[in-house]
Amino acid sequence: MTDFAATRGMFDLPDGVIYLDGNSLGPLPRSAPGRMDGVMVEEWGKLLITGWNKAGWMARSVALGDRIARLIGAEPGHVVVGDTLSIKVYQALAAALEMNPDRKVILSDTGNFPSDLYIAEGLIGSLKQGHELRTVAPEDVEAAITDEVAVLMITEVDYGTGRLHDMKALTEKAHAHGVVTVWDLAHTAGATEVKLAACNADFAVGCTYKYLNGGPGSPAFIYVAPRHADTARPALAGWLGHDAPFAFEQTYRPHAGIERMRVGTPPVLAMAALDAALDIWDGVDMAALRRRSVELTSLFIDEVEAACPMLTLASPRAADRRGSQVSFRFADGYAAMQALIARGVIGDFRAPDIMRFGFAPLYIDEGDVRQAVAILSDVMGNRLWDRPEYKTRAAVT
Amino acid sequence: MTDFAATRGMFDLPDGVIYLDGNSLGPLPRSAPGRMDGVMVEEWGKLLITGWNKAGWMARSVALGDRIARLIGAEPGHVVVGDTLSIKVYQALAAALEMNPDRKVILSDTGNFPSDLYIAEGLIGSLKQGHELRTVAPEDVEAAITDEVAVLMITEVDYGTGRLHDMKALTEKAHAHGVVTVWDLAHTAGATEVKLAACNADFAVGCTYKYLNGGPGSPAFIYVAPRHADTARPALAGWLGHDAPFAFEQTYRPHAGIERMRVGTPPVLAMAALDAALDIWDGVDMAALRRRSVELTSLFIDEVEAACPMLTLASPRAADRRGSQVSFRFADGYAAMQALIARGVIGDFRAPDIMRFGFAPLYIDEGDVRQAVAILSDVMGNRLWDRPEYKTRAAVT
Repeated sequence: MTDFAATRGMFDLPDGVIYLDGNSLGPLPRSAPGRMDGVMVEEWGKLLITGWNKAGWMARSVALGDRIARLIGAEPGHVVVGDTLSIKVYQALAAALEMNPDRKVILSDTGNFPSDLYIAEGLIGSLKQGHELRTVAPEDVEAAITDEVAVLMITEVDYGTGRLHDMKALTEKAHAHGVVTVWDLAHTAGATEVKLAACNADFAVGCTYKYLNGGPGSPAFIYVAPRHADTARPALAGWLGHDAPFAFEQTYRPHAGIERMRVGTPPVLAMAALDAALDIWDGVDMAALRRRSVELTSLFIDEVEAACPMLTLASPRAADRRGSQVSFRFADGYAAMQALIARGVIGDFRAPDIMRFGFAPLYIDEGDVRQAVAILSDVMGNRLWDRPEYKTRAAVT
Repeated sequence: MTDFAATRGMFDLPDGVIYLDGNSLGPLPRSAPGRMDGVMVEEWGKLLITGWNKAGWMARSVALGDRIARLIGAEPGHVVVGDTLSIKVYQALAAALEMNPDRKVILSDTGNFPSDLYIAEGLIGSLKQGHELRTVAPEDVEAAITDEVAVLMITEVDYGTGRLHDMKALTEKAHAHGVVTVWDLAHTAGATEVKLAACNADFAVGCTYKYLNGGPGSPAFIYVAPRHADTARPALAGWLGHDAPFAFEQTYRPHAGIERMRVGTPPVLAMAALDAALDIWDGVDMAALRRRSVELTSLFIDEVEAACPMLTLASPRAADRRGSQVSFRFADGYAAMQALIARGVIGDFRAPDIMRFGFAPLYIDEGDVRQAVAILSDVMGNRLWDRPEYKTRAAVT
């Protein structure tokens, strides 16, 4: 039985703020600054270079990966932490493409992160092997899986609408057509009950700074299914993925298993904050988290639709087709979101007209939902979004 | 006039330790824990997602790059921070190869970091375009620069011996033969007076956790010469390198200049420590640093050769051919280094027989050198390295 009142107490949220943007950047775990200070002062400061052994820095990428593995339904020992999500997408996609050398189509959808599509474009441009990035509408993905496709590269939850793809069904159809799958879990790890092993996924990647609360720019993770772990070729063949990094051999020999997906020297300080954030997850049952998430997003939809008729639901109404975020369309959505933020309700905006609200059960409860709706109702009903001060756009939305 | 006594006071070094391993991991700047705590508690904790704008997180990769630019003789605005050194080597090498599409040879040397060679191997394996990694002895590099070579990929200072390549001469010869250059500055940034612009280098990369003291696993940097900055193609085409990352366009359009070499979400926490470390550098004149470094390494060589006849100098004797480290060969070097570390002199060991000592003028002075030699003399003269407790090897050396 997960105690969500207890997990809420483990975060340091500012007074007067209802934070519905954990899908962009999770809040500060109370234990993170102390953990970081310990790593900096007691480990880096006192152990210096010997910290790599004595403080276990070198093994932390795998240790953190194991803690994330449980949260995404992966087999232990098959997730490793490091780099950024973009880098991990590149690694997974490059390795997956090589498993289907005679096929040239990378299938994705318009609901994927643009960044994932950019990474695919960049890889295609380097390879010069005639690959094609084929991007279809999210609802057309299943039909577009054919024997022509080399890799299906999909983000499980659409960052704009919160639409949740059916990982199991798409992976099954992909495998029936000989297609290798790469799943981006950026908006599902820590937000839904991901079941990588049960869905037979091939590769998966994700970030840790959204629902996992690892801090701004915290490292990413990558999963490689056990059946591929000893054969997938790391395109980014860095020394930490070598079988014997400290033998300083002149030739690359990949490490067995997931460790070959390590690249460079691990980010020890960033991993300290992530380590503290993952402590909170150790007590969380993911099925309970998913139930709680559905309760919160469903309540929000019901209440907003009753109170704010100007807003149009952009997320799927069926809870089982939705991640842990709710999006509404509104032509002046940017200004409306600024008006909301000025009143302590922090969500965010995605062009052209999407107001996004993320619900992280670890620190958001029903009281927050009702209060956020009351403030949103005030902003909409009293046309507060129509004030000029809310219409100037910042660089980062 | 750089005040090296003052810079020494800006580091928190443990009592009783003479730290001659700043070429592996620089020590903790006194201001770093406080800076980090501020970013975590005041920025991440209180600003949450708005920190990207309000705290300037998004612009920090370029701001830190500019501070590093001065230290390596680069034009302002042409260095950016992020990822790991391995990733930046991959980006630079991939971009450089595309500038010479009709040539297939990557020239490097056996004194390069194995990791750089691994990255080249991985890239070649992905491209399947018939590239060859040609690795010659360091002294044979100049002669091996021919019209057949696409890219010269060299680490300026050999991590084993401290041998310093002549960047100006090699770059000149490379350009005379139409070869694009990629310089790895891991052991020169913050250690010697690097002059990228004056040497007409094409690409350069480096790490910040060695002589720059950014902390374990702190982010890397990349330099692209102004003449290539708007044309080099980023193989790792992440969203932060896009011309308009927050427009969420479906197609990649590289940013003008160095920013295209950004990849994923920047590591804000790690950059906080690096920012504090770079404060120390702001007062340092690089020519003065180089003079001080030569004084320290020359003194060390003279004293060790006088006191420890069992040790054989592995570094160049000529100061202008040497970085800021000194290496000695000794068959039982691993055990001897363990005996030294047990007595507070921290250097490191590289197989098969290299004892390495790094001299960072920011916090090492002549008194340290003399005391380190006295302890080394005791270890060697009294055969302390022959004790069994020093012969068990740790995972990380």
